[in-house]
Amino acid sequence: MNIPDTEAKRIVVIGGGFGGIRLISKLKNAGFQLVLLDKNNYHTFQPLLYQVATAGLEPGSIAYPLRKMFLNHPNFYFRVAEVEQVMPEQKTIETNIGSLSYDYLVIATGSTTNYFGIDGMEKVAMPMKSVNEALDLRSVMLQMFERALLTNDEMERRRLMNFVIVGAGPTGVELAGALSELKSHVLPKDYPDLDMKLMEVRLIEAGSRVLAGMSESSSRKARRYLEKMGVKVMLNTFVKQYDGHIVTTNHEEFYAGKLIWAAGVRGNVPEGFPVEVIRGGRLRTDEYSRVKGFDSVFALGDVAFMETDAHPNGHPQVAPVAIQQGSHLAENLKCQAKGQALLPFVYKDKGSMATVGKNKAVVDFYKFQFGGFLGWWVWMFVHLMSLVGFRNKVVTLMNWVWNYINYEHGVRLITRPIKYRKTVPAEK
Amino acid sequence: MNIPDTEAKRIVVIGGGFGGIRLISKLKNAGFQLVLLDKNNYHTFQPLLYQVATAGLEPGSIAYPLRKMFLNHPNFYFRVAEVEQVMPEQKTIETNIGSLSYDYLVIATGSTTNYFGIDGMEKVAMPMKSVNEALDLRSVMLQMFERALLTNDEMERRRLMNFVIVGAGPTGVELAGALSELKSHVLPKDYPDLDMKLMEVRLIEAGSRVLAGMSESSSRKARRYLEKMGVKVMLNTFVKQYDGHIVTTNHEEFYAGKLIWAAGVRGNVPEGFPVEVIRGGRLRTDEYSRVKGFDSVFALGDVAFMETDAHPNGHPQVAPVAIQQGSHLAENLKCQAKGQALLPFVYKDKGSMATVGKNKAVVDFYKFQFGGFLGWWVWMFVHLMSLVGFRNKVVTLMNWVWNYINYEHGVRLITRPIKYRKTVPAEK
Repeated sequence: MNIPDTEAKRIVVIGGGFGGIRLISKLKNAGFQLVLLDKNNYHTFQPLLYQVATAGLEPGSIAYPLRKMFLNHPNFYFRVAEVEQVMPEQKTIETNIGSLSYDYLVIATGSTTNYFGIDGMEKVAMPMKSVNEALDLRSVMLQMFERALLTNDEMERRRLMNFVIVGAGPTGVELAGALSELKSHVLPKDYPDLDMKLMEVRLIEAGSRVLAGMSESSSRKARRYLEKMGVKVMLNTFVKQYDGHIVTTNHEEFYAGKLIWAAGVRGNVPEGFPVEVIRGGRLRTDEYSRVKGFDSVFALGDVAFMETDAHPNGHPQVAPVAIQQGSHLAENLKCQAKGQALLPFVYKDKGSMATVGKNKAVVDFYKFQFGGFLGWWVWMFVHLMSLVGFRNKVVTLMNWVWNYINYEHGVRLITRPIKYRKTVPAEK
Repeated sequence: MNIPDTEAKRIVVIGGGFGGIRLISKLKNAGFQLVLLDKNNYHTFQPLLYQVATAGLEPGSIAYPLRKMFLNHPNFYFRVAEVEQVMPEQKTIETNIGSLSYDYLVIATGSTTNYFGIDGMEKVAMPMKSVNEALDLRSVMLQMFERALLTNDEMERRRLMNFVIVGAGPTGVELAGALSELKSHVLPKDYPDLDMKLMEVRLIEAGSRVLAGMSESSSRKARRYLEKMGVKVMLNTFVKQYDGHIVTTNHEEFYAGKLIWAAGVRGNVPEGFPVEVIRGGRLRTDEYSRVKGFDSVFALGDVAFMETDAHPNGHPQVAPVAIQQGSHLAENLKCQAKGQALLPFVYKDKGSMATVGKNKAVVDFYKFQFGGFLGWWVWMFVHLMSLVGFRNKVVTLMNWVWNYINYEHGVRLITRPIKYRKTVPAEK
């Protein structure tokens, strides 16, 4: 990998997500050699992926080159690599670009879509965890309408225009909201010869409410918003099967052109750890983020399962946890280097928020709950400020203002290969 | 295809490039039924593709959804389709989504990369005629540097960092300029552990000067700019072979990690026309844009070979010709409908321009030639104004200002799959 050996202790960080980048920026000039590995050369701001999928934003607005992020970091090295195996005994990792030894290893590999072992779901459902998956979703969605134009079969047309989102967490809710905004404001103009009343957006949730991670009142409000916008919210419903045409739930069967899977995630645990340290697909850590039984291996964020008295079942798999754990671990590594005592991690839960549509968002902020116009502006402000890089902030803000004024989703580009089958015979 | 039959005569336009979109916008409310077919759902502003390839712009800044472009056009239909066959006798076309009859057919399919039958070149060289090709080029280029980091073999590293551009037309010149700007301003910061002196940009041209389509003085100036920026300009040189590693020209052999092919184009002539009407890979038309021998078939822009006294060897394959022919044909179709006499096409050549780098451009404007700072600003203004859509203008301007101030190319994202081979063994 051509990482020079130096006097400094080498910290290898796997994953340039929220936790990984926070840790590295906090460790600047702390006297360590920092090596960041990621399978992409950019950081992805996942909370806004759904806007890339729904043609509201360009990938470049929410993705930020990792090299650019850490310009002028002394003794910092980045490599595009996929980790194949961790060998904690040898303090070495195996990757597709060779192996590398470490003094400390930080696993910040995040999470991946969890299909809960539903047979074949992986092949037919569309996930949305990466920029490329969001771009695929955008292209496929637009292609459904192009194809709906070509058929004279009413059922087929309904099927093509019927979108099902599984999982009513923030991603599912935000996606459902954005799709129904497309339905009411953008697509009718683009497809005057399609009857948009045929388009349906269903949101399926196994639990008894949407946004289960938020307060009861925010859940109710979000559900009201969704239903007012025409989203069909199906609670206490779980998908048993989807063959690419028909969705089978515990209640009913219906046609769907696309099924978008936002129902859950599991930690991206690399190979090389014994089963005892893996729980719920995550790495069990102590409150110092140390992977149980491996003193020089740490885990952060979605991939970490940290049991504390406050969170006996681990922490929620959300960005703030990863960010706070990244900062905290940075401090602890500095303490350790100075021979000072380590401090246990305590999660400061400021609350959470989700947006359903224009002027429609729900916010839990500590004890306060609010929504509507104010919630929406707070949501926008917080997300804008969290974006990495001034350029991305400006471009995103510009797009939002633009879309707000014009009810637009400007980048309706099908940039992925289009698959068609011949439909109707020759006319005229 | 579900295009309704109406009283109005049906004009089918193949291709949403400069010629096609101009024709359609000029025919709004002219009483025709307009059907536009394109293999993409967007128009591509090709003159700025090279900035997408060099991470200066996002695709969404230079691509514009065709449906959005023609909102509220009465009796207008767009379909994403690939034309497989034209049957002029039956006044019908065959496409991948079915067949369609026409009263008038306008072929505005533009041009495709021409490898001049050099054996295997198509497989190893990278073209840059579409958004997807530009994105591929961006990803591959950045991957070369990621890979160069991994090898200890000096020759291999040189090879990976050696870019060869074949063809010194505007695209080749602008690409070479942008690459050497990346070399001097962006890449050294991104890759501090790579010796950027190893990076070479070669521009190979079979003719005796760069920008052969422009004035002698502009050619000389552009060449001086390129050489000052460190581009190795190789004139009177033609590539005989490239195996993915070694370029063989009529003079020498050298290593190259990537060869970008901008050496020429040929018309995208659809199947179904006799050889007599094809010349230089283009469709021969009279001065009314009618394809020779087919009164109801017209050809525009790059795909058309219109012989006039002023242009006995056809017109240059540049945007202004396509745009002017589009406008002109629209007028003639209106005349024809009114039973008025048709007017022959006359190309108004206002000149042309190319940019090499910051404050370095060359402009031929009628009899005037100028360059440098002024030329650069004129180039930027003209291209900005030609972009379709206010949003694209604003986003592009913002990026340009940003890149100008910061010597930046913000979107250095590898969004295409990365292929690595293991290189160095384990260290430390």
